Amino acid sequence: MSDDRKTRRIRLGMVGGGEGSFIGAAHRIAARLDDQFELVAGAFSSTPERSHASAAALHIPRERSYASYAEMAQAEAQRPDGIDAVAIVTPNHLHVPVARAFADQGIHIICDKPMATSLAEAQGLAQRVDERGVLFLLTHTYSGYPMVRQARELVAQGAIGAVRIVQVEYVQDWLGEPIEQQGNKQAAWRNDPKQAGPAGALGDIGTHAYHLAGYVSGLKLQELAAELSTFVPGRALDDHVQVMLRYEGGARGMLWASQVASGSRNGLRLRVYGSTGSLQFDQEKPEELWLTRPGQASQCLYRGVPATPGGVPVAHRIPAGHPEGYLEAFAQLYRDFARAWRGEAGVELPGLNEGLAGMAFVEAVLRSHRDGMRWVRP
Amino acid sequence: MSDDRKTRRIRLGMVGGGEGSFIGAAHRIAARLDDQFELVAGAFSSTPERSHASAAALHIPRERSYASYAEMAQAEAQRPDGIDAVAIVTPNHLHVPVARAFADQGIHIICDKPMATSLAEAQGLAQRVDERGVLFLLTHTYSGYPMVRQARELVAQGAIGAVRIVQVEYVQDWLGEPIEQQGNKQAAWRNDPKQAGPAGALGDIGTHAYHLAGYVSGLKLQELAAELSTFVPGRALDDHVQVMLRYEGGARGMLWASQVASGSRNGLRLRVYGSTGSLQFDQEKPEELWLTRPGQASQCLYRGVPATPGGVPVAHRIPAGHPEGYLEAFAQLYRDFARAWRGEAGVELPGLNEGLAGMAFVEAVLRSHRDGMRWVRP
Amino acid sequence: MSDDRKTRRIRLGMVGGGEGSFIGAAHRIAARLDDQFELVAGAFSSTPERSHASAAALHIPRERSYASYAEMAQAEAQRPDGIDAVAIVTPNHLHVPVARAFADQGIHIICDKPMATSLAEAQGLAQRVDERGVLFLLTHTYSGYPMVRQARELVAQGAIGAVRIVQVEYVQDWLGEPIEQQGNKQAAWRNDPKQAGPAGALGDIGTHAYHLAGYVSGLKLQELAAELSTFVPGRALDDHVQVMLRYEGGARGMLWASQVASGSRNGLRLRVYGSTGSLQFDQEKPEELWLTRPGQASQCLYRGVPATPGGVPVAHRIPAGHPEGYLEAFAQLYRDFARAWRGEAGVELPGLNEGLAGMAFVEAVLRSHRDGMRWVRP
Amino acid sequence: MSDDRKTRRIRLGMVGGGEGSFIGAAHRIAARLDDQFELVAGAFSSTPERSHASAAALHIPRERSYASYAEMAQAEAQRPDGIDAVAIVTPNHLHVPVARAFADQGIHIICDKPMATSLAEAQGLAQRVDERGVLFLLTHTYSGYPMVRQARELVAQGAIGAVRIVQVEYVQDWLGEPIEQQGNKQAAWRNDPKQAGPAGALGDIGTHAYHLAGYVSGLKLQELAAELSTFVPGRALDDHVQVMLRYEGGARGMLWASQVASGSRNGLRLRVYGSTGSLQFDQEKPEELWLTRPGQASQCLYRGVPATPGGVPVAHRIPAGHPEGYLEAFAQLYRDFARAWRGEAGVELPGLNEGLAGMAFVEAVLRSHRDGMRWVRP
Repeated sequence: MSDDRKTRRIRLGMVGGGEGSFIGAAHRIAARLDDQFELVAGAFSSTPERSHASAAALHIPRERSYASYAEMAQAEAQRPDGIDAVAIVTPNHLHVPVARAFADQGIHIICDKPMATSLAEAQGLAQRVDERGVLFLLTHTYSGYPMVRQARELVAQGAIGAVRIVQVEYVQDWLGEPIEQQGNKQAAWRNDPKQAGPAGALGDIGTHAYHLAGYVSGLKLQELAAELSTFVPGRALDDHVQVMLRYEGGARGMLWASQVASGSRNGLRLRVYGSTGSLQFDQEKPEELWLTRPGQASQCLYRGVPATPGGVPVAHRIPAGHPEGYLEAFAQLYRDFARAWRGEAGVELPGLNEGLAGMAFVEAVLRSHRDGMRWVRP
Repeated sequence: MSDDRKTRRIRLGMVGGGEGSFIGAAHRIAARLDDQFELVAGAFSSTPERSHASAAALHIPRERSYASYAEMAQAEAQRPDGIDAVAIVTPNHLHVPVARAFADQGIHIICDKPMATSLAEAQGLAQRVDERGVLFLLTHTYSGYPMVRQARELVAQGAIGAVRIVQVEYVQDWLGEPIEQQGNKQAAWRNDPKQAGPAGALGDIGTHAYHLAGYVSGLKLQELAAELSTFVPGRALDDHVQVMLRYEGGARGMLWASQVASGSRNGLRLRVYGSTGSLQFDQEKPEELWLTRPGQASQCLYRGVPATPGGVPVAHRIPAGHPEGYLEAFAQLYRDFARAWRGEAGVELPGLNEGLAGMAFVEAVLRSHRDGMRWVRP
Repeated sequence: MSDDRKTRRIRLGMVGGGEGSFIGAAHRIAARLDDQFELVAGAFSSTPERSHASAAALHIPRERSYASYAEMAQAEAQRPDGIDAVAIVTPNHLHVPVARAFADQGIHIICDKPMATSLAEAQGLAQRVDERGVLFLLTHTYSGYPMVRQARELVAQGAIGAVRIVQVEYVQDWLGEPIEQQGNKQAAWRNDPKQAGPAGALGDIGTHAYHLAGYVSGLKLQELAAELSTFVPGRALDDHVQVMLRYEGGARGMLWASQVASGSRNGLRLRVYGSTGSLQFDQEKPEELWLTRPGQASQCLYRGVPATPGGVPVAHRIPAGHPEGYLEAFAQLYRDFARAWRGEAGVELPGLNEGLAGMAFVEAVLRSHRDGMRWVRP
Repeated sequence: MSDDRKTRRIRLGMVGGGEGSFIGAAHRIAARLDDQFELVAGAFSSTPERSHASAAALHIPRERSYASYAEMAQAEAQRPDGIDAVAIVTPNHLHVPVARAFADQGIHIICDKPMATSLAEAQGLAQRVDERGVLFLLTHTYSGYPMVRQARELVAQGAIGAVRIVQVEYVQDWLGEPIEQQGNKQAAWRNDPKQAGPAGALGDIGTHAYHLAGYVSGLKLQELAAELSTFVPGRALDDHVQVMLRYEGGARGMLWASQVASGSRNGLRLRVYGSTGSLQFDQEKPEELWLTRPGQASQCLYRGVPATPGGVPVAHRIPAGHPEGYLEAFAQLYRDFARAWRGEAGVELPGLNEGLAGMAFVEAVLRSHRDGMRWVRP
């Protein structure tokens, strides 16, 4: 590793995420927040003019504004100051081809979830990434929250005993009406099987819920039984997901994801119950983590209060009581990626394994649903 | 109807609920709170000395303290000042025989839930009660909360549009350890199939959750698929229930009941999502009801604020901001019973239909569980 | 003491509190809730017909329905089954004359707050009550909440170290408009100096806030400086109170009471900060008490969770998670009164001392306000 | 204005805020978050080695790492690519001399609060800044929260009627022990009159509370009466502040600031009550704003829900339900500064007027306290 890798900013490129994209902007702020990255190149849109307009607005020189990701991968690989990593923030169906193109050039990858539109496709990508030895970060943003990491650590330390029950839900309401038929682009690709793959809410937010539950509980799913629903007439994909979970070791759980839960904004909530206590986390109040034991006062832990035990790898930017939020959690993933890139050992990144598990979950849910909600193994 | 029925206190007897019984005490306070009842007779325990001791502590004259419910039914029916109604607060297996004994004497019935230990038994009782024309109140206490009634009214008025999703849970932690094997009487009978029937947490609290969901949503269950678990070793009955719900008209839902959810006290929570909004109720904060519509400020309604629409039949005892709770909700049911007894028309009481539906639910869950969580009709 | 005093119900009379009175109804429910009292006599209104109508509705025989409190005191004192105690729920200006009349007959007294309309008047009553040796309960209801009692106990045990800061507020909005000029009777007497005395919100709710602060903190007030305001045009008394507090030993505090705080229902909140932690109580969420220590997780204690230490004298009626509220807190005071009446030693009742302290507080606030908010001793 | 001013990043320098400084780091993240600034120069510490070490860690070239602010002001003014603006994040006593040095060079100023250590000093600076025509942003961070801005707009629109009552508090606990005597640098300068000026908690956080109250309510303070306390032995400045407020037009209020409120993290809370409703904001839950009107359901508004009316100038980075926090509020101020710098008309920045008002408030409190809490005009 060259010496400057210890200190210099990581040169970042981006594919997708042009103007109007929520997730592209979020990635950029996350990359910037801790000053570990500089965005130097991009192919922000499949439409060249839109791509160049976005690039200009982002202070990216014209020569590094590309009309296609393929061109970008090649050109950047040639440059002495080429990008170190690429952030992929396209619709789902492009995750794999884009990632392959950059992996082939030895460029590290930061990829939005879900990893792919099928398990097979994800497996192919995983093999390629492994072969090329590049870093692969799958942005399961919610695992970047300090209180989520503390929850994981508390479970691992036995603070709630053996886990018995997992309840996880991720509910929104923005697809309560058929806005994909009314010109909303964010909604349109998410409900188009060609771009989103065979899963709607299931892939878009169900995978987040599934990842979060496993991340915190440390449990491995054994079987699931699921039913998908589509409440909005004319919609091509599911907008509502209900899953029963059987974990290895006997724990049980339920997962609920919906994008038609009227009055919900971004309600990702996790509750994990063990033999001696429970933990509760609500993404909309991310500075809090509730730890409750039978017969005892409920404890509300805050970021940094009590001081996070050494085992919890999170940034300390501002003191407790000065709320951090979603963008800071997102920045935590970028920060972790930077630590790994700089050669730090032992950095855990949500990556290939999490991506493969997510796709296995999606396919198992689809299978169980198709077969009348029978129990299937993911 | 005799004239004094308009004004005098209802003479109440009680079977079960002697010293140390939580639910017996709750019934007595509920009966007393609005001054519509006087407790004048009882068979408080199957052990005569305990029964008489309880009676004495409750200011009941020795002559109306009975050693058995059978004796009590007969004796009270003979008296000119005999009881008008009996409150049955025994373990589940006695609900039906006790209720039959009093119904046979034309004495009105207030019965704790579940109605019976089997649907067949419940059906038999229902027929008898119908034949005898006595009132039958099944104390689904939680439907006595003003905000629950307001929620029901709001749904009925279309305030959240067509209901799409129902999420209901009832979680406690007091059975997280095998306390039924350690001398706890409340736990002992609830986990003894001979006294509790074939359902553990399912019958004890699952039926409350099921009733609440139907009461507020106005939906009728079409099919369910369920899995029961027993987490505590050596326990004879279920202590954890997970159910998937398909309602008539296409709504979907999930029900979760557990008595091993560490750190939970009495967590009965209902969320109902319609096409244009949602309602949320949490029994531990019973003065609040949340109404949220997409893109609008969330509204927190309180008891009496805004002034309850005329259609909501609830007592107004104290102004908003002076919290009412569980006992007042319980008293509401007694108050409703009194209104019905006094001849008021149009009083809705949870009664035979609700009891039969609850038993049908219990048996459907048991059946689905036995058959590997297949969909069954209740 | 006659033997039956150990067990029989206390015979209660009531002065004031006829139909339409919130506080009369609350007293009656409180008296009834724990089955320690029976209401057997009353002079419910200064208008005889209204008084008798109320009596009839309350199942009180015509012969014990009185047209005046003076007549009632005399008549009841003559009866072998005369009342043991009287509950006084009249407008403020009658508290002292009514209490004197019953004290003179050796009848015990339960009196709404404030004790009087002046300190001198209160002192006269206190002397009389002392001479006659009757019990005197001043219904500072909020000290009946289990979590308030637990807070007091925690402070006394040193759980938050030496108290430094007290913040107390009691805010409502029901007098935000001049409803006393629009026929509201509750508002009319409270804003009529002849019936309410010289203090408006100050006497009505400020005294509750003041009592609560002292009850929990255990501190004695040394000096105060205050400003009263009247926001509603045409109102005769204050509707808004701001007070600075200097406690003995150096603690500081602020008290705020208002009946024009738009959007407030019954917002009585207390926060006490010591050298090592703090306690917070909100009357609208009375089952919770927050205990927070620097650098540690915030703890939310609930009624009975953790199990109340032996030192906290409160009833245990229903388990945690089954919310109790205002009426149960009120009943706690009646229950305490009953314990004292039955001869139990060591029962603490808010009584003469609290009443005198409240009047001294009221007069000190009035004095400080009149003198441009100078510091005065209560 | 040169054309590139429309688009290029603003070149920012920083004085103070080296390693270990919370507020320096916060300013840098805030500047970076919306990509409107690049940090290119600094004098991060009065110790040259520390200053250069901080510069290096921040990717600032050695030639633009300065040993003193005076040197920096001069050198940067000479460079063709010199800084456009300087962020001043030193202890209070340096705010004015540093600001003067850069103003003299025509460099725009972003200054932490309080503006100065005396009103006279602040007035001198204000005059100089005016003469030089540079922008001056005083970082009253909390006015950058979207819900604070929405609250201000709602008050201005009359959503709560005429304001009657203002309650504001800012409480922390980090100075509950004499940590300034135990090596804590943040605490040391804040409690050293030579560096902090004559006000402790009053200047550090009291000014924030005062600003927030005026910002949202739109009211102008007429008189105040105040008492300062110092609870921690050996401390040179106040650690606890209590103030009574009289606003023009008759509104009343209370302000409480404390750094010894055990168990408080960063508790800045504002409540404004008008004739027809009230608003509540809690900085630790900054995505929420409560609007409550008498007799109506309480409304909880969230960032973007309902869609912010056009009059509220705030960034929209991520959708509601993805929590933003303190750093995003801080970035809003930087973003506003950038808009003003780019020549946009009508941008409101907290600046000289707010700084002068803050110093007038501080001096009035000191004066009132010294004179036994008499009413004084700020």
